[in-house]
Order: sequence, then C-alpha cells, then structure tokens
Amino acid sequence: MNLERTIEVATASRTYPVVIGSGTFERRDLWQKYGRASSIAIVTNKTVAPLFLDRLCAALQPLQVPVVSIALDDGEPYKTWASASKIFDALIAARCDRDTLIVALGGGVVGDLAGFVAATYQRGIDFIQIPTTLLALVDSSVGGKTAINHPAGKNMIGAFHQPRAVLADTATLQTLPLRELRAGIAEVIKHGAMASASLFTYLEANMTRLLARDPEALLKVIEESVLIKADIVGSDERESGERALLNFGHTFGHAIEQGLGFGTWLHGEAVGAGMVLAGKLSVYLGMLEQSDLERLDSLVMRAGLPSTPPDFPPAVWLDLMAGDKKSRGGEMRFVVLDGIGRARVVNQDSKQVLKFLLAAGLTEPA
Amino acid sequence: MNLERTIEVATASRTYPVVIGSGTFERRDLWQKYGRASSIAIVTNKTVAPLFLDRLCAALQPLQVPVVSIALDDGEPYKTWASASKIFDALIAARCDRDTLIVALGGGVVGDLAGFVAATYQRGIDFIQIPTTLLALVDSSVGGKTAINHPAGKNMIGAFHQPRAVLADTATLQTLPLRELRAGIAEVIKHGAMASASLFTYLEANMTRLLARDPEALLKVIEESVLIKADIVGSDERESGERALLNFGHTFGHAIEQGLGFGTWLHGEAVGAGMVLAGKLSVYLGMLEQSDLERLDSLVMRAGLPSTPPDFPPAVWLDLMAGDKKSRGGEMRFVVLDGIGRARVVNQDSKQVLKFLLAAGLTEPA
Repeated sequence: MNLERTIEVATASRTYPVVIGSGTFERRDLWQKYGRASSIAIVTNKTVAPLFLDRLCAALQPLQVPVVSIALDDGEPYKTWASASKIFDALIAARCDRDTLIVALGGGVVGDLAGFVAATYQRGIDFIQIPTTLLALVDSSVGGKTAINHPAGKNMIGAFHQPRAVLADTATLQTLPLRELRAGIAEVIKHGAMASASLFTYLEANMTRLLARDPEALLKVIEESVLIKADIVGSDERESGERALLNFGHTFGHAIEQGLGFGTWLHGEAVGAGMVLAGKLSVYLGMLEQSDLERLDSLVMRAGLPSTPPDFPPAVWLDLMAGDKKSRGGEMRFVVLDGIGRARVVNQDSKQVLKFLLAAGLTEPA
Repeated sequence: MNLERTIEVATASRTYPVVIGSGTFERRDLWQKYGRASSIAIVTNKTVAPLFLDRLCAALQPLQVPVVSIALDDGEPYKTWASASKIFDALIAARCDRDTLIVALGGGVVGDLAGFVAATYQRGIDFIQIPTTLLALVDSSVGGKTAINHPAGKNMIGAFHQPRAVLADTATLQTLPLRELRAGIAEVIKHGAMASASLFTYLEANMTRLLARDPEALLKVIEESVLIKADIVGSDERESGERALLNFGHTFGHAIEQGLGFGTWLHGEAVGAGMVLAGKLSVYLGMLEQSDLERLDSLVMRAGLPSTPPDFPPAVWLDLMAGDKKSRGGEMRFVVLDGIGRARVVNQDSKQVLKFLLAAGLTEPA
C-alpha cells in the first residue's frame, strides 16, 4: 500500500500540488522543488514550534537561504490584526523582500493568518502550507482562503491567495490532541454530507479506526477530502457559486463560535453542531428525510463532537447570523442538504429563521 | 473640442474604464452603468467631504440603495492600519456585505486606503475610484495598487485590486491647493521622462498653462498619463517586469518621504527630487546625457517642485533605501533613464550607491 499521494489543485489564479503522506515536510527533495526564495519566514505557534520547528529548519538548511521564524500564541483568539502585525514587523526587521517565501507551520489559525500576511506583504508574496492539524489537512490549507477575525465577525478581513504548495504531513497527526482530531473530523463529515455519499458511508463504517489514528483510514479521508475540495475550488475559486456549498454547517457554526467568544468551542466543534442544525433546517424545509438527519446527528456524536448548540436567545441568534459575511442584501444564506452527499444554497429572511429556531426548540419565544 | 474621453484599462484580472472629463462623478448615467450594489460605502477625508460629498450622495440617490460615508483625517500620516480599521468598523456596523460597493472619493491616500479595504473586506469587494487630486487622476487611481504604510516602510502592506471603474473628474482640480497640483505634475513629468518624449516636450512648452489649470492642458496630460499607465499595467499587472519602470524617481522618493516622516513632503514633491536624483544616477552610470538631466532638473523646478533632496547622512540614505520594497536579495533597484522617454531598471549594491551619493555631493563622507 502506497501511503503517499499528490493531488493537483488547479484554480484560475494558480495550480499547485497537495503532497499527502508521512514525513512530507522534512523531505529535502520537496524543498528543492518548491522552496526557492531569497529568504524563508516560518510562521508557527508556541504549541507546534517545540514539536516540529527544529526538524523543519533542518530540512530547509540545504537551501542555504536566511530563515527567520515567528511563533505566535496558539488559538483562534490570536487570529487578529495584532498577530498579523507582529508578523509584518518581523518580516520588515529581517528585511524580507518580494522573493521571501512564507511557510505556515500549524493548524487553521496559523495557515489563515500566515496566508493573509503573504497575500498583503508588499502586495503579495508566495507561501507554502504545512498543516499540522486534521482540520487544516482536510480543509483550510487547500483553496487559498486567508483571513483574520474582526471583533464583530469571523474571517471578515482576508484575501484569496493560493499557496505555492501544500505539504500535508500525516505523521503530524500522531501528536495531535484528541479534541483537535475530533474537530478535524467535523470537516471530513462535512465533505461527505455535502458532496460524497460514499465518503459519508466510509465514515460511518470507520469512525473507530479514524479516532484511533489508523494511518490508512486517515490517508483515505484526507485524500477524499482534498479531492472534493480541489474539484470545487478549481471550478469556483472566489466562491461565486458552487464553492459556497463548502460552508455547510458554517452559518450556524460561525454564529456559535462568535456568540461564545472565539476559541471557547473549536471551529470544528461549532461546525459539528452547526451541521446538525443545518440538517434540521433541511428537514424543516422539506428537503431532507428525517432518517438522513439521524444518520448525520449520529455520525457527529460518534466523532465526539457536540451535536446540540448553545441556547442563545432568539435575538442573539439572529444578530449573530445577520452579521455573518455569507449574508447578502439582508437575507441569510444557508447550505442545506437534499440528501446525504447533495447540498444546495437557500436564502432565508430573519422571520423565517426565527420560525425555524422556535419550531426546532432551539430557542424560547421572546 | 470634446473635453471627455474614456480609456479602457485591460489587465489580467479585470478590464475597466477610466472616464475622464468635467463633472463625471455627478453623472447619473455613469452611476446607473457602474453603480450596482446592495449598498454603497463612500470613503473620503475631512478636506474633500465638504467640497464634494453632498453632490456625490445626490448623484447616488436614484440608485435607491443605502449609502454610508466615512471621512478620515487628511494626509499621508493617516494611511495606516488604524484608518483601515475605522473603515472596517464602519462597514461592519452598517452590515455591508459582499455586494457592497466602496467608493473612494479623494486623493492618493484615500484611494490606496479604500482600495486596500475593498481588497480585503470579506476577502474582496468592488470599488470605484473618484480621484480628486491631479496625482490620483494621472497615477494612483489607475492600475489597482492599494496599500497602507507601515512605520518602517511606505506601502509595505497592500494588494493588487483593480477598481470597477475610475470616474476622473477634472473639475475637482479647480479647487485643488496649488501645492497639491504641483505634486501631481511630478507624476506627469515622470510619465514623460520614462515613457514619452512627446509628453515631456509638451510639458516643457505648456507648464505655465498647466499651473494656471487650463482645462485643455489638464485634459491633455491626464489623457496621456492614463494611456501610458493603462498600456503598462495592461501588460504587467503585478509588476514582474515593465511596470517597475513606473517607479522612476520612487526609490529615492520613498526614502525622502520616510526619512523626513510621512507627510512632511508630499509624495509628488519627494518624487520630484527623487527623479532628479535618479537622473543624476543615470548620468553617473553613463546612460544619460548631461543636457537631458538639465532638461529634467529644469522641468521639475518650473513645476515648483523641490529638485534637491534633504541632506541625510550616508548611513541614513542606505538604510532607508535598503528597506524599500523594491530592494531584492540585498540589492537596491533603481529606474534610470537612457534618454528622455526611455527607462530601464538597474541593480546596485550599497557600496555602489554610497559612491554615487558621495560623487554627487549628496552626502558627506562618514
């Protein structure tokens, strides 16, 4: 069995490889191929740095260019302008120029933040993603979405900026905290639910192996996820159509994250409960069978993710969702399921959403 | 004589019109054509707002969409993250979404800042430029360069983001302070010096008319400048080659602006002295005739621009220029002239630059 796979992501602005396998970020041949630069700036966090930074620096050494590294505090609350500003300061202090390569070593927060800095430093420089969480491996490292949070909304400030390459190292998952592993599985469930009934079925049959970090099961779901994502972002890089389907569970999910304060629930946990809510909305709108909702609910629970959202008052729910950047022209946009593996977008105004929240017993009448 | 002209700018990422004429920003037919949006956010400054904001709002009224406006403090010192952040706050407070249109009403600072916000709000929304200074009309409003300054360097954080349209209203120049008019002429001289001997000759013959704001002369130099810029950015949107020639005078110019503190000299004033310096470097390197340098020096002086730079110590010059974002791999890049209307890029290391500065009597030996 070959535990390595390269998937090409072909977007309008750039084509690049996602190299999935064990030990990829330390492979000198890959750095020879993708690492050309006047200097390299590694952006990481204080949790990941002790685990992998030395090994990465050793792998970069044969390139014989200056390497600088910036380790930020770990977690969603640090995906802010203040952190981006620290990176800009470090790049300028190190005289980084337009041929400097940024390397994002970490999970989704590090990737989004380092990607945003790469998108805007001197109007854009190249970067490479080394995702070290399952969530980043299967989702955020692929597709070029970069962003920082604003106190009033997640990912409100950002850019589309595709990486030069993604070195997806499955070995990093062996040290990932279980809670983070579960959060990553949320995005894999999402891919199954919105695009692949076969992936969904695979997850139903292999959740135990996945939670036990079986390398073959991990590689399988990472591959399937990256293929789904590469296909979608290849045809709709800037989310003018089909790419929006990848937001299944995310309108509710972002509301949960923001309502509790960023970092209280992990992004994947909020997406877990958000998917179940979106599934309930799908049933409420007559699009999804109750039995399929139950499959979704059960899979989310078996992954060890919360399937019930926090009980915000109705006005809070509405306010949080109206501020989401997926809302347009006063309407809120939701991705709903037509069945397992089939999704579409619906618009709902605030009255309709309130009716649903009340009917689902998710909130008390005002 | 038809005092209106539309020039198409065709870049890799977008094609858009620059409508040059008197009263363009108030023309309801143009807003019907280019103003579609869920809401409109006008970004301006406290100097420009009292002059034009009401008239702009009146012109937007038939579109029947919500209009919000943000008036920033005026000047280069405010081209910062703090100002961008104020705009983001206002957009979020007004529930602006991905179909919101930003309108930049002002000079280069407003255009760069509003453009940067448009490039990054919710990963990019559309914007329209209404340049109200000569510098913005002939240069900064066209080509999609957006940026904010970092304390350690001008335009260090930014993005390429082309506007949906540029409504270049020559009538706004009638109220422009003379100092700002002169600063704008610096960029027109630049266009002549680096790309068009005939524009340069026209400026030599018509500087008095231009300073008297003769509408025909203004239209002529704006048209010629936009044509030159459109041609260059059309073939090299992201400055991988030819577009760098538009930086003639800017390596020295940015060093002057930053060395004195942003806003002490206007950008155009620094470019005036910077072009004469770059001309001297061209002569020093044996590329330009002394007589052509004298034509350049004389034209800069006739425009009322400084032709002599501040006398920084050598280490300060070198430090300021090494930090410029045009420097690559330790070398500094300069645009030099082969003759009036012909430019090219040369790389110089710091020792060579120091020798030139000493030879030109621009700084004392350490």
